[in-house]
Amino acid sequence: MIRLGILGYGNLGKGVENAVKYNEDIELCAVFTRRNPETVKVNSEVPVVSVNDIEQWKDKIDVLILCGGSATDLPVQTPEYAKMFNVIDSFDTHKRIPEHFKNVDKAAKDSGKLAIISLGWDPGLFSLNRLFGNVILPDGKDYTFWGKGVSQGHSDAIRRIKGVKNAKQYTIPVDAALTSVRNGENPELTTRQKHTRECFVVAEEGADLKQIEKEIVTMPNYFDEYDTTVHFISEEELIKNHSGIPHGGFVIRSGKTSDGTNHVIEYSLKLDSNPEFTSSVLTAYARAAYRLNKEGHTGCKTIFDIPPAYLSSKTNEELISTML
Amino acid sequence: MIRLGILGYGNLGKGVENAVKYNEDIELCAVFTRRNPETVKVNSEVPVVSVNDIEQWKDKIDVLILCGGSATDLPVQTPEYAKMFNVIDSFDTHKRIPEHFKNVDKAAKDSGKLAIISLGWDPGLFSLNRLFGNVILPDGKDYTFWGKGVSQGHSDAIRRIKGVKNAKQYTIPVDAALTSVRNGENPELTTRQKHTRECFVVAEEGADLKQIEKEIVTMPNYFDEYDTTVHFISEEELIKNHSGIPHGGFVIRSGKTSDGTNHVIEYSLKLDSNPEFTSSVLTAYARAAYRLNKEGHTGCKTIFDIPPAYLSSKTNEELISTML
Repeated sequence: MIRLGILGYGNLGKGVENAVKYNEDIELCAVFTRRNPETVKVNSEVPVVSVNDIEQWKDKIDVLILCGGSATDLPVQTPEYAKMFNVIDSFDTHKRIPEHFKNVDKAAKDSGKLAIISLGWDPGLFSLNRLFGNVILPDGKDYTFWGKGVSQGHSDAIRRIKGVKNAKQYTIPVDAALTSVRNGENPELTTRQKHTRECFVVAEEGADLKQIEKEIVTMPNYFDEYDTTVHFISEEELIKNHSGIPHGGFVIRSGKTSDGTNHVIEYSLKLDSNPEFTSSVLTAYARAAYRLNKEGHTGCKTIFDIPPAYLSSKTNEELISTML
Repeated sequence: MIRLGILGYGNLGKGVENAVKYNEDIELCAVFTRRNPETVKVNSEVPVVSVNDIEQWKDKIDVLILCGGSATDLPVQTPEYAKMFNVIDSFDTHKRIPEHFKNVDKAAKDSGKLAIISLGWDPGLFSLNRLFGNVILPDGKDYTFWGKGVSQGHSDAIRRIKGVKNAKQYTIPVDAALTSVRNGENPELTTRQKHTRECFVVAEEGADLKQIEKEIVTMPNYFDEYDTTVHFISEEELIKNHSGIPHGGFVIRSGKTSDGTNHVIEYSLKLDSNPEFTSSVLTAYARAAYRLNKEGHTGCKTIFDIPPAYLSSKTNEELISTML
């Protein structure tokens, strides 16, 4: 059994707790929290432990999955805990990945542990598909579309507008753009041509709806470059119809192998729950981290470095006979 | 530069020759043939060499891509040439892969070379996506659909019928089945519900068309379990509209991460030329074989064993900053 720890019990931590139940060779041993452990109720028969006591678990856990946020948690936590554990994170601030990689790599090499960072679906499975697309069709174009799904960042941005009580924002790929890419037309697409944004907003009583709508659709970076639709709905309707966290998207590589011979590789995800799916990816890569470290590998890795067979509990013979 | 050799100059060999032109770090050094070299005209400025003289190229080639067939060529060639070269093949007789693996592994371990077998898209990229789907969504169902594309085996089977001059058979996935799978309905599908078969047949003058059609649609293993449509057309029309070798298909994994929370992962290919695309996959993996062997790895590998980063000529830093 691979002994797993979770640090941070939000959506992602709960997702890992769930994912463990579907993996017979992995057992959850503890949930670590920065909160008062007595206030955290988990859905498994495992202890909730203060992160201050985590060092006592050094030899009781094989892999620690860090379930914090990329803004302030992971840049500190991943290098810190790579000093004691094999670690997995979902660090997703693209432009800061090289710096994060360097910090984690140093810590993990010093401790003889292995870390795999920036896992999930983007960065993660989508990155992997961009890589495969590029090496197989070097003469081609990449397209990544996101959605239909909830953007937490955009929902938050709307909630900060005066007069808004609650809000949910969906990112939606434009069908015409997808169709053109799939047809191998290799279009040049502007931001506006790729995605639309749909907002469901609960306004405070007496709020100026016209003003709220205007502030949304003109908001720089978030909405001004998109065609945005705003719907005002009741709190009840928001809870009833927009409580989920679905997401997904498409990575498409279109390219040729000789004049006039085009190929289209498409990878797509349709996820009922963004955090649960991300957690499932983290859990599979925890298995790989454990096995690679056991073989003597140390330092920081990304999804690009991991031989796919290490993700599976099956032997090579089983993989060959059942999946090849 | 990675120095490449091709053995066998059919569709696949020509495809590799093409693919090399799109990969700046790979150069084609020689085409080896079992035919009289003087009768083989290639599209590159490289020597055509009798396979009998291949041993003289032992130190002049880094990777040999074997472009023969799976029925009789590769079971002999891959172990044979793994004694001298790092080798790549597209062996696709699923049930014989374990035996082939064993033979190639022994030869390559003895010689200190590295072999990667059963590459292409199925087995190959589709296998990889089956693996990823299974490890990320352990509680789910796999679906593989092929087409729309030309099945060489089925076309050949029709051509063997008395009165048939020429024929082309397309395998076509059933839309309703694809839609149901994509909707996460996890249907149980019979062979008939997954694919239909469409045949374009050129009959000999005076042939009994009703009889040909009957022989096709009732042919055991090939057609009897499918809904099959037969069109009789002229030789001109066959050449004009059905000369290509397009193919493709879909690998879909549908599964849940908790009660009521379903996810669909879909990987699809739409290929103008089946052999050219397959060749592009072989060429990318030739790079990986070269690099892995240089690092001291030997023996037989499959697509499951190769860290994706080894497929790319980019450094890890470049991959992280451009694709992660």
